[in-house]
Amino acid sequence: MNDDTTGHAGLGWIEGKDERLEVLSDAPYVVGSRLDVLAGARITDKRQLFIRNICDLATAHTLEPQPVDGWEIELGGLITPSRLIVRAEELLGMDQVEYEMVLQCSGNGRVMYPGIPGTPWTQGGVGNVRFSGVPVTAVLEKHGVTIDPHVRYVTAKGAEGPMGHGLPDLEHSLPLADVLATSIFALQLNGEDLPGIHGGPVRLITPGFFGTMQIKWLSALRFETAESPCFYHAVEYRVPLTPVTPGDAFTFTLENSRPTWFIRLMSYILDPAPGSALAAGSVTVSGVAYNDGSAPMEAVLVSLDRGETWRPARLDTPDSPYAWYPWTIDGDLRPGTHEIWSRAIDQLGRTQPLDGTVHWNPNGYEWSGVFKTEVIVT
Amino acid sequence: MNDDTTGHAGLGWIEGKDERLEVLSDAPYVVGSRLDVLAGARITDKRQLFIRNICDLATAHTLEPQPVDGWEIELGGLITPSRLIVRAEELLGMDQVEYEMVLQCSGNGRVMYPGIPGTPWTQGGVGNVRFSGVPVTAVLEKHGVTIDPHVRYVTAKGAEGPMGHGLPDLEHSLPLADVLATSIFALQLNGEDLPGIHGGPVRLITPGFFGTMQIKWLSALRFETAESPCFYHAVEYRVPLTPVTPGDAFTFTLENSRPTWFIRLMSYILDPAPGSALAAGSVTVSGVAYNDGSAPMEAVLVSLDRGETWRPARLDTPDSPYAWYPWTIDGDLRPGTHEIWSRAIDQLGRTQPLDGTVHWNPNGYEWSGVFKTEVIVT
Repeated sequence: MNDDTTGHAGLGWIEGKDERLEVLSDAPYVVGSRLDVLAGARITDKRQLFIRNICDLATAHTLEPQPVDGWEIELGGLITPSRLIVRAEELLGMDQVEYEMVLQCSGNGRVMYPGIPGTPWTQGGVGNVRFSGVPVTAVLEKHGVTIDPHVRYVTAKGAEGPMGHGLPDLEHSLPLADVLATSIFALQLNGEDLPGIHGGPVRLITPGFFGTMQIKWLSALRFETAESPCFYHAVEYRVPLTPVTPGDAFTFTLENSRPTWFIRLMSYILDPAPGSALAAGSVTVSGVAYNDGSAPMEAVLVSLDRGETWRPARLDTPDSPYAWYPWTIDGDLRPGTHEIWSRAIDQLGRTQPLDGTVHWNPNGYEWSGVFKTEVIVT
Repeated sequence: MNDDTTGHAGLGWIEGKDERLEVLSDAPYVVGSRLDVLAGARITDKRQLFIRNICDLATAHTLEPQPVDGWEIELGGLITPSRLIVRAEELLGMDQVEYEMVLQCSGNGRVMYPGIPGTPWTQGGVGNVRFSGVPVTAVLEKHGVTIDPHVRYVTAKGAEGPMGHGLPDLEHSLPLADVLATSIFALQLNGEDLPGIHGGPVRLITPGFFGTMQIKWLSALRFETAESPCFYHAVEYRVPLTPVTPGDAFTFTLENSRPTWFIRLMSYILDPAPGSALAAGSVTVSGVAYNDGSAPMEAVLVSLDRGETWRPARLDTPDSPYAWYPWTIDGDLRPGTHEIWSRAIDQLGRTQPLDGTVHWNPNGYEWSGVFKTEVIVT
């Protein structure tokens, strides 16, 4: 299965390296949404937002909201008091913060890397949505929680379980500084109560981080001095600190690798779609671009001639640093087969490599190569 | 004084934030060489290579080589044996390794940052040279030296002393892994015995690192678990890990900052020189580009119209990953005042920010903004 798959009925499973893709029963639904359905809308509709769960909560296979009543999140670790139960209901009465932000699977684009097993994402595992909820810091302050000065990470755990016997459970550690700066207990997606399949009733949302770090069905936060030894945090969802020759074996450790935390800068051409037939003459190309929110986008350079010339697109700058930037550019194309390329550059001087395989890693995370779309002009 | 200064006789000193620039007595000599003198030559002549010493060795104010006889380098720290004297003479009889490499002051380009004290470098504090000498690992092997597994840094010290009463002495720490991978006890510059003013008779050279880390008049290496607390390593020659608002005070610590170790990707337009008067019509623009050697250069994009269009220059790829890439591009200019811009991109997707002040830091290191040259076309 790839991200061109639509309209499945029933609950489906895709095997691949001990991983499964869920397909919702309320079809038509897009799993790992197709890029073309993302065009034209600044905010990605929940029905077109990709789904990727590596663990499972059987009651959450739905786009409907989940009951807030009785949902609890346990805070523990090196804090005072050493244990605190946060009730989801109490979050409803507190001030809410909203982020417009990119949600992207760290494996999006995996098929572009050579020889990588795993869910065969092409490039649709991404969307731009609005999450709102209560800042973690506000809850800590409300309850008078103090954090031991040795704490460096916050480990988040959901209420889900492994998808099969013997498979590991999921949790992820985030840097304490980022959690205190931006994390929210999210209750809403795009202004509606958070759907079950997207982590409702409560999801830990930290803008600028990859989707796997946005823990669904949040049940626990632990304040700790070290990163979690959980398989999915300490072995999977990591990239080596130094380059690896494609195909070489690599044994991940906390020391020789880093988590797939921060979203890599990326651009996509959404229109025209790949393989489109166009009439010769003027063409308008549009897409989106984003990074991890740590710096504004400087430019999206577009080439209609395989890199012989590049011109900057018009950028539509969002209010939120974590949202994507829609962009548009006009050009002319003569009859023939053409590739259109896009390359984002942010104000820190980070850009997409022309050959994205330079960032090859054993699990195929963080693809960020120059985006290329082939079109046929007649 | 700036890098347009030439032809000084005698030994001069420039004050500025407790720093001094040396001007050699065997003038004509370029201190912080002008960019235009770098054009056209792949290898920078020793007479045109910038000079920047923050400490002083009175006997080394010369472009002549220094006596190898009797020069000793003491190895110590967490090694077995715990102390070893390496005689420079013994290095002469060992296999030599040569690097063609960029030598760049980490403060080069400082004047482009707003409101920074210190040596007012424009952009001439750079060159491309050949250093040769004996790998540190070869010397360790010859003497059967073993390194304690807790060692993470090698601290290098020269025989020089502070330039004034009460000023600190200089030493720098480098990552052990880099020292073992590439560092050499350098004895030659551009195929000749290493001039005194450039660190002769023995300089520790580690390609891909900024000039300050290339310790002249090498007298000691210490193998240690932590970085040196020396002022010039632990306070100066560092940049904050997170952005600083220009002008804000910042107290450097080993935890909140990093050393100016790795050369930032950069490109320069060497011809035409800034302010050149050109005839309308075709123009050939040329320059150089480089990074820290960790990935090949992908492209140098050049714009003759302030970023409206960019075209890739022809790259002359050097054999050494640490050398600069000469580049050339042809274009047309109509009468008027124009800016020519150059922007390097390497295969890792690192490029120069259009506004280089994004990397503002209190001491003005590591300028890497898009290079801009104004020319007048008639």
